Amino acid sequence: MFELGANRYGKSRIRLVTVDRTTPRHDLRDLTVDVSLEGDFTAAHVDGNNTNIIATDTMKNTVYALARDNLAGSPESLGLTIARHFAGYPQVDRAVVTLRQHGWARIPLEDGGAPDAFVRSGDLTRVAVVAASPSGASVEAGIEDLTVMKTTKSAFVGFERDAFTTLLEATDRIMATKITALWGYGETAAEPGFDFDDAFERARTTLLTVLAEHVSPSVQTSVWIMASAMLEADPSMDWVRMVLPNLHHWTVDLARFGLDNPSAVYVSTTEPHGLIDATVRRT
Amino acid sequence: MFELGANRYGKSRIRLVTVDRTTPRHDLRDLTVDVSLEGDFTAAHVDGNNTNIIATDTMKNTVYALARDNLAGSPESLGLTIARHFAGYPQVDRAVVTLRQHGWARIPLEDGGAPDAFVRSGDLTRVAVVAASPSGASVEAGIEDLTVMKTTKSAFVGFERDAFTTLLEATDRIMATKITALWGYGETAAEPGFDFDDAFERARTTLLTVLAEHVSPSVQTSVWIMASAMLEADPSMDWVRMVLPNLHHWTVDLARFGLDNPSAVYVSTTEPHGLIDATVRRT
Amino acid sequence: MFELGANRYGKSRIRLVTVDRTTPRHDLRDLTVDVSLEGDFTAAHVDGNNTNIIATDTMKNTVYALARDNLAGSPESLGLTIARHFAGYPQVDRAVVTLRQHGWARIPLEDGGAPDAFVRSGDLTRVAVVAASPSGASVEAGIEDLTVMKTTKSAFVGFERDAFTTLLEATDRIMATKITALWGYGETAAEPGFDFDDAFERARTTLLTVLAEHVSPSVQTSVWIMASAMLEADPSMDWVRMVLPNLHHWTVDLARFGLDNPSAVYVSTTEPHGLIDATVRRT
Amino acid sequence: MFELGANRYGKSRIRLVTVDRTTPRHDLRDLTVDVSLEGDFTAAHVDGNNTNIIATDTMKNTVYALARDNLAGSPESLGLTIARHFAGYPQVDRAVVTLRQHGWARIPLEDGGAPDAFVRSGDLTRVAVVAASPSGASVEAGIEDLTVMKTTKSAFVGFERDAFTTLLEATDRIMATKITALWGYGETAAEPGFDFDDAFERARTTLLTVLAEHVSPSVQTSVWIMASAMLEADPSMDWVRMVLPNLHHWTVDLARFGLDNPSAVYVSTTEPHGLIDATVRRT
Repeated sequence: MFELGANRYGKSRIRLVTVDRTTPRHDLRDLTVDVSLEGDFTAAHVDGNNTNIIATDTMKNTVYALARDNLAGSPESLGLTIARHFAGYPQVDRAVVTLRQHGWARIPLEDGGAPDAFVRSGDLTRVAVVAASPSGASVEAGIEDLTVMKTTKSAFVGFERDAFTTLLEATDRIMATKITALWGYGETAAEPGFDFDDAFERARTTLLTVLAEHVSPSVQTSVWIMASAMLEADPSMDWVRMVLPNLHHWTVDLARFGLDNPSAVYVSTTEPHGLIDATVRRT
Repeated sequence: MFELGANRYGKSRIRLVTVDRTTPRHDLRDLTVDVSLEGDFTAAHVDGNNTNIIATDTMKNTVYALARDNLAGSPESLGLTIARHFAGYPQVDRAVVTLRQHGWARIPLEDGGAPDAFVRSGDLTRVAVVAASPSGASVEAGIEDLTVMKTTKSAFVGFERDAFTTLLEATDRIMATKITALWGYGETAAEPGFDFDDAFERARTTLLTVLAEHVSPSVQTSVWIMASAMLEADPSMDWVRMVLPNLHHWTVDLARFGLDNPSAVYVSTTEPHGLIDATVRRT
Repeated sequence: MFELGANRYGKSRIRLVTVDRTTPRHDLRDLTVDVSLEGDFTAAHVDGNNTNIIATDTMKNTVYALARDNLAGSPESLGLTIARHFAGYPQVDRAVVTLRQHGWARIPLEDGGAPDAFVRSGDLTRVAVVAASPSGASVEAGIEDLTVMKTTKSAFVGFERDAFTTLLEATDRIMATKITALWGYGETAAEPGFDFDDAFERARTTLLTVLAEHVSPSVQTSVWIMASAMLEADPSMDWVRMVLPNLHHWTVDLARFGLDNPSAVYVSTTEPHGLIDATVRRT
Repeated sequence: MFELGANRYGKSRIRLVTVDRTTPRHDLRDLTVDVSLEGDFTAAHVDGNNTNIIATDTMKNTVYALARDNLAGSPESLGLTIARHFAGYPQVDRAVVTLRQHGWARIPLEDGGAPDAFVRSGDLTRVAVVAASPSGASVEAGIEDLTVMKTTKSAFVGFERDAFTTLLEATDRIMATKITALWGYGETAAEPGFDFDDAFERARTTLLTVLAEHVSPSVQTSVWIMASAMLEADPSMDWVRMVLPNLHHWTVDLARFGLDNPSAVYVSTTEPHGLIDATVRRT
């Protein structure tokens, strides 16, 4: 009468900090890891039979144990290690490991960055999503929580006007958004030797540079321009998806107080916000 | 070389409160509404041509205007009105409206509930997701933020043990979770006369009753048992999906202080947490 | 040249859940506890001498251990036990224990509330603040996170108008706020036999009833009216402080769309908000 | 029978963004402003007489209007302008303006920072608290949300051991905290010519440098050492208060899996946390 449909389970928000002390100049890595498994878990749901269940507590232990021998390297490479481990269980069809890397920078001292003291740099979160199955692995990477603002070179004109339209056309407005971007690497990325850190830095730099330099006729076009540039800059990337809230900044009406407002004073809002979600891919 | 893939855009977190004052006993409704459109928006992305773009500001205005003549009724019915409005634009293939209804209860007075004073009841958020296209509409409904706890009748034994397993078997543990449930109604729900409030109450009551009464061998089995009961209770429901974090409560080791702990003192945790996600559907 | 000024330290956000299983009808209590100590800790700051330091980890252990023999009773009484324990250390001048009790209600079943299954009722957080010193103890209690709305019987007229005033007078507006209230009991409350649960219920009921029934000419006057009523209702209460954000609900201008808006459709906002903070006390 | 005690009211979370476009290289400032007034407001509470009430909506308007002619300069100087404005009303005894400045950095391009595109730098929030009365003004400044970590040079030994102590002594532990620091400038700071930006940078640099370099026998001693250094570095500072959560990082026990853990793999926690609060002042 009823049947089990799509299902997965795992452990979320495993907080992992590693310190590599192999030299006096410590390396710090701070990750939040989610593990999720799909496979032969019908009996666990339908019959209350836990035989095939790998406890989520075991997943947590496994992440900490596998991190022990992977103190250096990219989140993607650690993710591949973890995902392949879980894909090795006979009952697992697919293991997905999501890693969010929280940025830390060395505290600047007169003679360079401190060897053992760090400040959390909150400008973005680096994301890696690794999926492994018995037959192979795939890697996606991305950025979250990157808040940016263009104080000019953004317009919004020529849009549809109907009975409920009151928005004025804007030839020069503030554009502000909190970027979520995710991109997929081709199959070769899962093979040894792919430099995930290098690819991430290229993606981040391209995104920020194009964001700063382009003229935006709409957030939709900005997605197309930025994503296309990222694909152009890195042939290993197959597609780029962006999800961009439009964090509206409204010009305050100061004429009521006998003052002009030459695009100088704004009220910043978060609610409600536009939300633009689009993927650009190679043809 | 590149092409636009999946894309949608809209307005999120439109905060709408309506008061129906047609009798001295006011009715209060508090919604957060998201609107999202898919359709012929390629030119807006690729060419910077906004002709087809319905501004998200217009979407916000539309929600407020359409709410004016819909002060009473379920969130689903308001959602159908909004979604069908947007599906009427020639460039729109699909409009999705998500409505989260925040609960308010009358303040209890000696002679019954206050006619015009309310307290926010934070025990759950009611969700409606309505999709409309030129050819029809579909309705999903759900629950978010429903935090529950079973202080007994929950066990977890017989799971796989490997080199990284340290979790002990538990024949009597606390089960705590924050329920997200979503279910799909069949096609007839979008026709006039379907009682969404009644269906929601039936779903909520069934879910809570079965949650309280059943014996849980795992969170996975709990999903199966609760979702099956909801499908049994309401033939208009096609499927139920649940996403349940396992909010672990660990028994505190008091033996270190010369005390016993007969399942009495727990530390409540949120991080990390298990996460179980499964759909049950009619065969 | 420099000296230590005011200082305190402690453990915050100790998550304590207790289950009283002495009958088949379990009792559930869910608390977040903060402990804070003041005393002779100058050497710990100035000399790096930890002799007098009670580790905050020890505080956490102590809370769990003392909870073992206090599975029943009010948060205030548990707070008195914990605070007096810490005030017994010779180096402690004052121990402050803050307890936030998260509400849980039995899941309703056909034959009454479930004996062992609960739903989190998010309508308010009950707060207790207990301070103990070698010479005595004092108790404060309160409410947080109680969000309420009056859909009429609220006005705001006759306020000062200057060059920057644009707000129109309102003879009938929505009043919405998220109540934080704290009150102090007299000295006898710390003696055995005081019924903190009864006093809390009286305070809560009085607050809600007066909130619902009074006519508000301003949030400031509402504080005076509600707090005075609470003091009248309970002679053991010395003072009441309220901190009330004014969560503005603005009437949407629908005339732009050819519609009236007879106090029916509002936009709910949280930012910016008014904030009213006042104490009423016995003369 | 009852009387009004301490009271204040105002507007919180006024979101103000200003863009100075006087050169093609725009300057961006992003502030959240709170205004709070004390004074002759008894009638507003007790009698429902709003004559003396400056509407909080007027406060919001005033902040935007006064910002118009203060597009450049420190948050402290804008705060002085606003606070003195409100202290000019006859019914106001004291106006307190709190400004939180959210950091933005120019997006780096090949030829330097972008003139009109910015990225939110989330490493700290700069705080200014300005109080004005008819007789004068005072200025406090501070830092919030500065998360830091020392991977060595932190210990905790020699603390009190009692029946509830299980924490082991640690000669080399991770110290992590989210710094809130606030300091008070002497009276001359409110006079024209004081360089608040310079003073803030000196405070920030001293705090971070000492944090990185010192050896910490406890968080309490760290507060003393850092605050003393800040007072030494700036004679215009009268006192420094720090509130430091101790964000515990626990070494994972990997021996259960046949692995060593040479201070390499940690679980990062936020709940519960120690909380150290101390002020250091000139004698």
